[in-house]
Amino acid sequence: MIEQLQRLPGVGPKTAQRLALHILSRSEAEVEALAAALMEAKKQVGACKVCFHLSAEPVCEICQNPNRDRSTICVVKDSRDVIALEKTREYRGQYHVLGGVISPMDGIGPEQINVQPLVRRVTDGNNQEVILAIDPSVEGETTALYIAGLLKPFTRVTQIAFGLPMGGDLEYADEVTLARALEGRRELS
Amino acid sequence: MIEQLQRLPGVGPKTAQRLALHILSRSEAEVEALAAALMEAKKQVGACKVCFHLSAEPVCEICQNPNRDRSTICVVKDSRDVIALEKTREYRGQYHVLGGVISPMDGIGPEQINVQPLVRRVTDGNNQEVILAIDPSVEGETTALYIAGLLKPFTRVTQIAFGLPMGGDLEYADEVTLARALEGRRELS
Repeated sequence: MIEQLQRLPGVGPKTAQRLALHILSRSEAEVEALAAALMEAKKQVGACKVCFHLSAEPVCEICQNPNRDRSTICVVKDSRDVIALEKTREYRGQYHVLGGVISPMDGIGPEQINVQPLVRRVTDGNNQEVILAIDPSVEGETTALYIAGLLKPFTRVTQIAFGLPMGGDLEYADEVTLARALEGRRELS
Repeated sequence: MIEQLQRLPGVGPKTAQRLALHILSRSEAEVEALAAALMEAKKQVGACKVCFHLSAEPVCEICQNPNRDRSTICVVKDSRDVIALEKTREYRGQYHVLGGVISPMDGIGPEQINVQPLVRRVTDGNNQEVILAIDPSVEGETTALYIAGLLKPFTRVTQIAFGLPMGGDLEYADEVTLARALEGRRELS
């Protein structure tokens, strides 16, 4: 059990042992309930057929919600990014989860992530804007540029702003971020 | 001596004691050299007459440099921000150091910081762009908006980009930064 628990992210040998001892101290019924919950979730939760966000239904809640703007798609790397963006309560459009970023070094090309379904969504529907919200790493930027190239003939493609984080201090910002913030300056209206 | 040293930023009782013991172990000539260097620097270094950046000359090196673009002024809170921006090696214009931000709670109004000299620099010279690079705090944003209002009749006023820091992870960004990054999205060209 300790060996299995250690494979979880952020769980080292000590934490695994603590978790294991805790589980052993619980009643058999309780342990069974935990094990069943894991299996149940794994069986039920899959990728939404439309946007590839994690979902217990074939089509996720966000895609089903009639109050959400269907003309805007926000493209992210994984479901955690959807959750992060939903927390801002600022975005009312739909999402598209790529499931990864293009990374030739790791053998991940555009075919290994959900790019084609995105192109199909954009060309089939009444899309008016695709917002690229992919982490600003080398792979992330490559992926954003690749997708922008594919989609620009069909729709407006924007990218979230990169720059100084809110509450951040110029003095403590790294040079790349500062240079990007300077380059990305905007006219004050 | 320990009491005096403790007033330096980041120096607590223990560090002050360590510094003091070190100083006492040095020769009298060495201690005199240190003390003289402090006094000398304090006497020589003042604010540049043009931009208010720290300078040993009446006009600082950046303002004197004929290779720097005189049509662009980057407005910052203090000299540390000038040093941070210079490290990016991306900016070739001039600076203007406000010496603080507007903060009514602390009794700091526009008159307490170098706003009037900035307006004079812009209206007197051939300024083409003022870049506001003030930390994105409540006071910083208030100051930026105030200055933008004053200068817009005379020149183009821009603001550095606020958003996701480079190499940052969407998932770990705070909600305000994420909302700002979304709001500040730009068309990909």
